[in-house]
Amino acid sequence: MEEPAAFLAGLGIECGPPREAPHPDDLALPAPRVTPPGALAHLCSSANWDRASHSYGKAFRDVVRGLRGELPHPPDLVVFPAGEQDVVDVLDWCARAAVAAVPYGGGSSVVGGVECAVGEKYAGVVSIDLARLDRVVEVDEMSRAARIQGGATGPGLEDQLRPRGLTLRHFPQSFEFSTLGGWLATRSAGHYATGPTHIDDFVESLRVVTPAGVAESRRVPASGAGPSPDRLFLGSEGVLGIITEAWVRVQRLPRFRGSAAVHFADFADGVAATRALAQSGLYPSNCRLLDAGEAAIAAGVNDGSHLLVVGFESADHPVRAEMERAAELCGDHGGVIPDGVRLRDAAEDPAPEQGPAERWRHSFLRAPYLRDALVRRGVVVETFETACTWDHFEELHHSVVGDVAAALAEISSGGWVTCRFTHLYPDGPAPYFTVLAPGVVGAELEIWDQVKAAAAEAILRAGGTITHHHAVGREHRPWYRRQAAEPFVAALRAAKEALDPQQVLNPGVLL
Amino acid sequence: MEEPAAFLAGLGIECGPPREAPHPDDLALPAPRVTPPGALAHLCSSANWDRASHSYGKAFRDVVRGLRGELPHPPDLVVFPAGEQDVVDVLDWCARAAVAAVPYGGGSSVVGGVECAVGEKYAGVVSIDLARLDRVVEVDEMSRAARIQGGATGPGLEDQLRPRGLTLRHFPQSFEFSTLGGWLATRSAGHYATGPTHIDDFVESLRVVTPAGVAESRRVPASGAGPSPDRLFLGSEGVLGIITEAWVRVQRLPRFRGSAAVHFADFADGVAATRALAQSGLYPSNCRLLDAGEAAIAAGVNDGSHLLVVGFESADHPVRAEMERAAELCGDHGGVIPDGVRLRDAAEDPAPEQGPAERWRHSFLRAPYLRDALVRRGVVVETFETACTWDHFEELHHSVVGDVAAALAEISSGGWVTCRFTHLYPDGPAPYFTVLAPGVVGAELEIWDQVKAAAAEAILRAGGTITHHHAVGREHRPWYRRQAAEPFVAALRAAKEALDPQQVLNPGVLL
Repeated sequence: MEEPAAFLAGLGIECGPPREAPHPDDLALPAPRVTPPGALAHLCSSANWDRASHSYGKAFRDVVRGLRGELPHPPDLVVFPAGEQDVVDVLDWCARAAVAAVPYGGGSSVVGGVECAVGEKYAGVVSIDLARLDRVVEVDEMSRAARIQGGATGPGLEDQLRPRGLTLRHFPQSFEFSTLGGWLATRSAGHYATGPTHIDDFVESLRVVTPAGVAESRRVPASGAGPSPDRLFLGSEGVLGIITEAWVRVQRLPRFRGSAAVHFADFADGVAATRALAQSGLYPSNCRLLDAGEAAIAAGVNDGSHLLVVGFESADHPVRAEMERAAELCGDHGGVIPDGVRLRDAAEDPAPEQGPAERWRHSFLRAPYLRDALVRRGVVVETFETACTWDHFEELHHSVVGDVAAALAEISSGGWVTCRFTHLYPDGPAPYFTVLAPGVVGAELEIWDQVKAAAAEAILRAGGTITHHHAVGREHRPWYRRQAAEPFVAALRAAKEALDPQQVLNPGVLL
Repeated sequence: MEEPAAFLAGLGIECGPPREAPHPDDLALPAPRVTPPGALAHLCSSANWDRASHSYGKAFRDVVRGLRGELPHPPDLVVFPAGEQDVVDVLDWCARAAVAAVPYGGGSSVVGGVECAVGEKYAGVVSIDLARLDRVVEVDEMSRAARIQGGATGPGLEDQLRPRGLTLRHFPQSFEFSTLGGWLATRSAGHYATGPTHIDDFVESLRVVTPAGVAESRRVPASGAGPSPDRLFLGSEGVLGIITEAWVRVQRLPRFRGSAAVHFADFADGVAATRALAQSGLYPSNCRLLDAGEAAIAAGVNDGSHLLVVGFESADHPVRAEMERAAELCGDHGGVIPDGVRLRDAAEDPAPEQGPAERWRHSFLRAPYLRDALVRRGVVVETFETACTWDHFEELHHSVVGDVAAALAEISSGGWVTCRFTHLYPDGPAPYFTVLAPGVVGAELEIWDQVKAAAAEAILRAGGTITHHHAVGREHRPWYRRQAAEPFVAALRAAKEALDPQQVLNPGVLL
């Protein structure tokens, strides 16, 4: 990892020495308010370490509060079910005893989705951690599908699929720490830019434990029988039930790859080239446009160019034709490819590549660690994302960058805001913004809250969605309520009342 | 159109002379039971023609009942709203006056989705025909999207898009007569085999009039904000609201095409080749496997071969590489291509092609007309469809064909059952079955009901879905109720109660 102080000096941001987080044993957490029934006691922990580590997700505000030792609302207990019946029993107890139940996968929420601040109307709150439901239960090699438990992490499930030559190929930035159940509950997006990349597109069927019973959808590749039952639970963020397992599509490991790093002098040209690629029907697996700031920070491009990293991969066939057509489209819009197009067949050349595309990939996986290191030095650093149609992008980009910069100038001493595209659709991009600014110790959260509010207002005003793949949680709820149509929210509330009549599941999230 | 009698003689099926349907003016329909409020009167018709033509969809049982002049439950009135406010006003009146409201697009339902047999608890029933909401309201050429009213038919909306060089590229078999709103409400599947072909995949946002208010989703290319609001209405078959307009993705007209007609001596080899294609990541636009019976009937292949029609198309780039790889995969599984692979660039060669692939396409579009002509001669002819994972297909195919043949042998004097794949997924096919059998005048419906029940039981037993793209309607409800998980049905019922508290929308369908 790059040295954080050097990184910041390069951006002209001053920072303090790294702060250390308090040790969990030194935290004076409020005493647990509830005792589990005897039959569940062996699944429960009231240890400081467990309660503290299940208090927050991984947002900037979570890291700051953790560093400060501010944990006023830890779960009273953390429950580790060993099987589905345990989940049923825990929810039964919660409904009977008015205990709030917060589902917990890998804890990588950046929107307050796993917090236990549920208010005073509950006797207590438990965090239900699915870590022990971590198995790939069944693989259907003929159909290329696998039945996987909700608590399996990215590396955990890939390790179990790899000996079969298979992969789920779902790589969100949180991959190391997040779980299949969490991806499903939050409609996670993998790092592939086009084609099947949302976890939604991989689902054959779900098994969901609700207080009203277990809902299992039929395992079929597609069905036109009524509204999709899976799509009601996808994105429900734990308020309707707990996803204990899913049948998902898996794939063979890729063999053929092509990639190019395309430089653009003008950002608008890069946007136009990206749009041409998105509308070409080529389905690049990677197609990330980084503005000059991102290109410098994340890919070491120091000539002021904007960078489009474009790539294809296939387990079945060479990708030369697609790659060459993509390069041609980029050239039509003024893109240049200093290092040329690279094509690789893993059967002949198993060595990993080097270049801007690989520097970007490395940086992508390293970013969350760097973020945490920066926060410890008092820096305000966070990301937010949206999606909009192409006709709205120019205005949205201008408004967001302008309004965030204005907010930073007002409440901090300036800072950086950069933009990249993480996902592409024929009808629009998913822009992803990163903010980096000097913090004021003790006021980091207030600074961030103002920046976030300015960004969210600009996004809604300019026709974006309040979230593309970070979910709603607690953080986005005010804007979600403005975005969602009232009749739909009424229908969703009614569905929740039918499935969770005691309203114990994840109170305060989404609804 | 082929002469029906000759067609049947070729199959060894005897038939009678064609029956004529009674003229609507000669039908003694029950008198309308309700009178619209004065402000809505100008939108309503109680003419025999309108009431009779809105009594049924286009299923076999609908054609038979129409021929018999059996229309015991016509709508009391047919309403033709001229705009969204009219839809709001009609639903308001229905809720106040306990009048059932049956949304009507093109009337092409084959599952009883537009019938007005709503039972005795309503004061009356109106069929709400959206034919006048038929406009492409707005086109965003940059984002390649269009805002289209729910009543626009396939040809109607394509005629409005074509001058811009755009197409929705959604071609269900009902294309000529069905509407965008109907496609959305029933999760229609277009005739492309892979890639974006379900209408679900084209939706940016919906506008839905519900008795609880208008639900409009935000127009964005993707959103991770909660469960998808659009997916609740997609497939809701008019029980939650009436879709008055949608923003949908459109595309440029295709220029490059490739196709091949691949012959297989063994059906299992054809299935294996089709699976290889579905799992290759090539995304063929056409990939229909026809068993020998279908190949003979629909594509004039008379040597007993099973036929795989495979094709690619693109508006952007030549499809040679994909087409050649597809041919190679077919060859790996014993497929032969007597006429070779055809590649075409419409810019150089605008003349339409001829060959088995084109014969199949012609036959696909002609089939509903032929079906009606056969029914008039007393033949039992109908189709049904499902989807299953690859590991279940062999058993499903064996069970369905065997059980349907057994039912036909028992209640009729034999007949034909054929199978093709209409859509493909990496994890399984959507098999589509056609039944052709001699009828017994007066007992056609009883014969069909027994065949259908045998087929549906075999499908559910072998792991299929009760419908892939024909929807649930009234016809599939008993099997839908067995397929859908009870907690999900409870959630859907609760959503309906929230949106349609008087339960006036399409009673008897789906729920």
